[in-house]
Amino acid sequence: MEKKLKTAVVGATGYAGFELVRLLARHPRLAEPALFTREESSASSLAELYPQVTGNGCHLPLRPFSWEHLKTAGAEVLFLATPHELSREAVPEAIARGLRVIDLSGAWRLQNAALRAVYKFEDKDPARAASVMQEAVYGLPELHRTRLNGAKLIANPGCYATSVILGLAPLVHAGLLNPAADIVCDSKSGVSGAGKAPSAKTHFVEVADNFSAYSVFAHRHTGEILEQLRLGEEQLVFTPHLLPIPRGILSTIYVRLREEATQESVEKTYREFYAQAPLVRVFAAALPQIRDSAHTNYCDIGFTLAPDGRRLVIVSCLDNLRKGAASQAVQNLNGMFGWGDKEGLD
Amino acid sequence: MEKKLKTAVVGATGYAGFELVRLLARHPRLAEPALFTREESSASSLAELYPQVTGNGCHLPLRPFSWEHLKTAGAEVLFLATPHELSREAVPEAIARGLRVIDLSGAWRLQNAALRAVYKFEDKDPARAASVMQEAVYGLPELHRTRLNGAKLIANPGCYATSVILGLAPLVHAGLLNPAADIVCDSKSGVSGAGKAPSAKTHFVEVADNFSAYSVFAHRHTGEILEQLRLGEEQLVFTPHLLPIPRGILSTIYVRLREEATQESVEKTYREFYAQAPLVRVFAAALPQIRDSAHTNYCDIGFTLAPDGRRLVIVSCLDNLRKGAASQAVQNLNGMFGWGDKEGLD
Amino acid sequence: MEKKLKTAVVGATGYAGFELVRLLARHPRLAEPALFTREESSASSLAELYPQVTGNGCHLPLRPFSWEHLKTAGAEVLFLATPHELSREAVPEAIARGLRVIDLSGAWRLQNAALRAVYKFEDKDPARAASVMQEAVYGLPELHRTRLNGAKLIANPGCYATSVILGLAPLVHAGLLNPAADIVCDSKSGVSGAGKAPSAKTHFVEVADNFSAYSVFAHRHTGEILEQLRLGEEQLVFTPHLLPIPRGILSTIYVRLREEATQESVEKTYREFYAQAPLVRVFAAALPQIRDSAHTNYCDIGFTLAPDGRRLVIVSCLDNLRKGAASQAVQNLNGMFGWGDKEGLD
Amino acid sequence: MEKKLKTAVVGATGYAGFELVRLLARHPRLAEPALFTREESSASSLAELYPQVTGNGCHLPLRPFSWEHLKTAGAEVLFLATPHELSREAVPEAIARGLRVIDLSGAWRLQNAALRAVYKFEDKDPARAASVMQEAVYGLPELHRTRLNGAKLIANPGCYATSVILGLAPLVHAGLLNPAADIVCDSKSGVSGAGKAPSAKTHFVEVADNFSAYSVFAHRHTGEILEQLRLGEEQLVFTPHLLPIPRGILSTIYVRLREEATQESVEKTYREFYAQAPLVRVFAAALPQIRDSAHTNYCDIGFTLAPDGRRLVIVSCLDNLRKGAASQAVQNLNGMFGWGDKEGLD
Repeated sequence: MEKKLKTAVVGATGYAGFELVRLLARHPRLAEPALFTREESSASSLAELYPQVTGNGCHLPLRPFSWEHLKTAGAEVLFLATPHELSREAVPEAIARGLRVIDLSGAWRLQNAALRAVYKFEDKDPARAASVMQEAVYGLPELHRTRLNGAKLIANPGCYATSVILGLAPLVHAGLLNPAADIVCDSKSGVSGAGKAPSAKTHFVEVADNFSAYSVFAHRHTGEILEQLRLGEEQLVFTPHLLPIPRGILSTIYVRLREEATQESVEKTYREFYAQAPLVRVFAAALPQIRDSAHTNYCDIGFTLAPDGRRLVIVSCLDNLRKGAASQAVQNLNGMFGWGDKEGLD
Repeated sequence: MEKKLKTAVVGATGYAGFELVRLLARHPRLAEPALFTREESSASSLAELYPQVTGNGCHLPLRPFSWEHLKTAGAEVLFLATPHELSREAVPEAIARGLRVIDLSGAWRLQNAALRAVYKFEDKDPARAASVMQEAVYGLPELHRTRLNGAKLIANPGCYATSVILGLAPLVHAGLLNPAADIVCDSKSGVSGAGKAPSAKTHFVEVADNFSAYSVFAHRHTGEILEQLRLGEEQLVFTPHLLPIPRGILSTIYVRLREEATQESVEKTYREFYAQAPLVRVFAAALPQIRDSAHTNYCDIGFTLAPDGRRLVIVSCLDNLRKGAASQAVQNLNGMFGWGDKEGLD
Repeated sequence: MEKKLKTAVVGATGYAGFELVRLLARHPRLAEPALFTREESSASSLAELYPQVTGNGCHLPLRPFSWEHLKTAGAEVLFLATPHELSREAVPEAIARGLRVIDLSGAWRLQNAALRAVYKFEDKDPARAASVMQEAVYGLPELHRTRLNGAKLIANPGCYATSVILGLAPLVHAGLLNPAADIVCDSKSGVSGAGKAPSAKTHFVEVADNFSAYSVFAHRHTGEILEQLRLGEEQLVFTPHLLPIPRGILSTIYVRLREEATQESVEKTYREFYAQAPLVRVFAAALPQIRDSAHTNYCDIGFTLAPDGRRLVIVSCLDNLRKGAASQAVQNLNGMFGWGDKEGLD
Repeated sequence: MEKKLKTAVVGATGYAGFELVRLLARHPRLAEPALFTREESSASSLAELYPQVTGNGCHLPLRPFSWEHLKTAGAEVLFLATPHELSREAVPEAIARGLRVIDLSGAWRLQNAALRAVYKFEDKDPARAASVMQEAVYGLPELHRTRLNGAKLIANPGCYATSVILGLAPLVHAGLLNPAADIVCDSKSGVSGAGKAPSAKTHFVEVADNFSAYSVFAHRHTGEILEQLRLGEEQLVFTPHLLPIPRGILSTIYVRLREEATQESVEKTYREFYAQAPLVRVFAAALPQIRDSAHTNYCDIGFTLAPDGRRLVIVSCLDNLRKGAASQAVQNLNGMFGWGDKEGLD
């Protein structure tokens, strides 16, 4: 019998962290994960915080994070579901200690320093940070599968970025976009994307019966889209909105094609691009809706072509805590060890 | 032309406070209210916090509260939409300064010290507090109309308490309840009842798609119900629940009647009791629903009698920010000055 | 004392019709409206259907529509809150009978026959329909104020169309748009926009926790936007989405400017264009949200300019039942008789 | 290798039916179920109706029901997720054809004819119906486990009834209830409990931001509670309410105990009663909330005792489509064949 891999999760009580723990706990190739909070917490097990876990036999203990505890746990792979400042600080140390890391924050996603400037990182050891940055693989398996295998550090993509990049990649890759036209990405996300910390922005009374745009021309995920699709800043508009639902992202993407196409030719482009991508579902007849992908590991993509055969509207949906965070982290773990994309995700 | 009364509101930016300001601003007998926050605030007008007010000509300035500012404003009546500790401290001073007060907190609602103990007040000057307590009138106009006129201090009732007391008062007053049977009050409230401060309890993701009971046998409003209806603690069970909606309370109340009744005789009892109460609507054919009273100044009451003529289910609905708070405060102001219940509430 | 105008509403029990009745009932220049259902209905008053109206003294009787009943009621102005097929049939007859009409359907909005084709009207008397069509004024007072005065037939705009046209008109009018770039209108509407008839699309379980795009490149309101703004079909993409909220529309509109602008210069363009438009609120500092305009008569407009000064994102919000339907109908009535925009809408 | 059992589902496209299909499809002891609609349907597979199923390899074909098709499918066990009239008619025929049946409707739940009268069944062959009725086992495994084994007909309980009966059974069984006091069951259900057929009651706009009581003293599930717990009609009040959420039931149950108890003694009573019931979770420290049991197979039960040790509030939660319908049907199937409760439900 194969020896099971030992993993650890820091930030196990946040929305993405908890979702990740539930996936790791049932992954057939993994031992029970070691769980850490990033701060002192009164809870000593996940079950105290999430009573609904009790029946799943998942009374995993919970401790405040320390390198000492981590060593004792014997973890080989470290998942960080932590704020980007903390990830930026912790990852070099983790790598120096011989750990492999899958980081769910924005700390290591952007190679381009100009795009990364939005995060205002102040690295204590810039040379070491630059060296770690070179190791980092952007963890979108549908684009970078081969680079995942054996990677020391995988930067798990942003939830919005995943939905937009997967929606556009086949067209960009096939050179079908009209370079003179803008790419407009109008994205809408459920509230769990804003994290578990209570704030005026996540107060039920402020969100319910409401809908709003935010961070127009200023959202951090924009850089990931630009860098991954090699677009110029002036070609893309990305506007996030807050939906009054707990989870799910739907991105409506507007592009112009270089040459006249048909609904069938566009579908073929997507199907071919995602032929080996079991977590992307290409919709033929209908457009995907948020409920289709919510609580699943999939990114669902559909599209409608204008009668002129030139203007295309793409709809890309995923669950921000799954394919937008935790499921993708597991998929990246699978890629890191050469396992199938869907191991532990069925 | 009649001189307009000057009022002030402390806590104008909370949910109840803001609702109150909007009512006061259009009350025909009032000058524009002076508005205060209870803490330093970066906003200098309500319009900054609530853009939807802009069109209403309601760019009222907003200042941090101080007795000095209050004096400058020349307010004759002070509304406190503040936490009960703060109201407990501020009201004696306000009365000493010759102001009349309508307090929306729980600070001055309970005459019975044993019931009041749940609030754990620590009065600096217990004798003065006791003296002020004697002045306090429980501001449920449907029960205490005559005592409101000229009152120096009106304690605005709790939102749950209003819905339950108004639902039961006609039966208690008419002596129709079987004293050997329990009175069960199962109440459900929207999230604005929990206030504007963000917390895990009010986070959208925790509330949406959820429903829960809380404070079973331990909610502070229980004392008001007992004291106002002169019930023994062992006769009443009151259980609040959190509804995934922004506003509204529905209380389902279960009683046994002393003698067999008919739907008509029960309706008659309610109609007679509320004949002079323009803000209570007695439903005949159907039971009220939360949407009937939401965004209105009414408490809606309906009931269904069991085939045995003995067991009665009463449904009482109101908007927790209106008849459960702000509208009732205005109604109490009207009572204080001998104006009609609905002045400024049409 | 001025004689009050007599009005009638057909379709008074639908969402828009009911909202309209509530506005008409308190309009200072109007007699109580006569109310009609378009089909047989078991209800004989609005209060039977909407118990929350009881307290407003609005026990208006409700009858099935007939020309005979309408004549008896003595109505001078007829509001049609009916399906477009029915409006297309009824309006010529109403005009022939000397009535003035404000029609809330899509029947008389489009002068361009090619754009109108989407409705597939089959006029029994095409010549008469064509003649009536020439009388029709598109009832967007911010664009056609002078033509409303004395109009026999006002076609009340679609809710989506209102939000998009008002969001774009100042830029189009000032010639600021880059004609080579697409105009992308990504609109999101609450469920009441889909009407009161129950369907799979409006079932709570299908809508809650969900979000979806629909009618991509095929929505009927597209024609209104094109015709009113004199745009070519290839310049505009309009995509409606269904929000899991009862009411409200938010349109996010993406344009490119012909020349570099500043946030201030754009704001000036909007403020000047809407200087005489009391039901449009131009937001300076923040973007409007759905809750700002919900339950109000306003269309709220804000915008964010990209750092390049060329790309502009406009956010336009309104309540689909108010400024998107009933309030606009009242505003059109006011325009028809030369009254102020806000009469009856304060 | 064990031969897999063949099953069929009639009504596979309704909410409960679809949930059932998903559970059956992954049950390790079952062949792929044969799926039938109760009426003609344009869809020829579940995937057409529920796109989110595509990724699960669950392209099961869908046909209109006929006895002929059922025979061809070779089904040994028939699940009926059909209206009660249809189940009342179909079950005798199914049993005559040698099939075993698990019926999710109310058709065969009540042995007591007086209680059953509320359904107004008109059996064509009353004698045969009476004979079938005698075969029927009420499918609440926690109460009737031994009778399930080998049963020909299992009547799957109502969702409300399951939550209330499981909440009360330990106390009734232990004789702890004060017989002179009323039992008040205040239940709240999500909208999927009302079924998939669109109606005014399930329209999003009517349900959202609303909450209402219905069928007071008249709900059909009352009879099940009375019969299963052997209570007299005058002892119980059961009031259902409609929650603005898609799924989940929470019942708040109010009882008086015969003798003074402690929180610990009550907990012991529940734990002992449910010691062999893996799908009931007894909560110790906190009360269950709807989100705890939503999307799970569990019924969660918690309670709070009054300081007097006599009055007890019990909170019982479940997912109306799972433990309230489909999971319970699978649990009953397991009981029918002597398999473990949780087979196929992990």
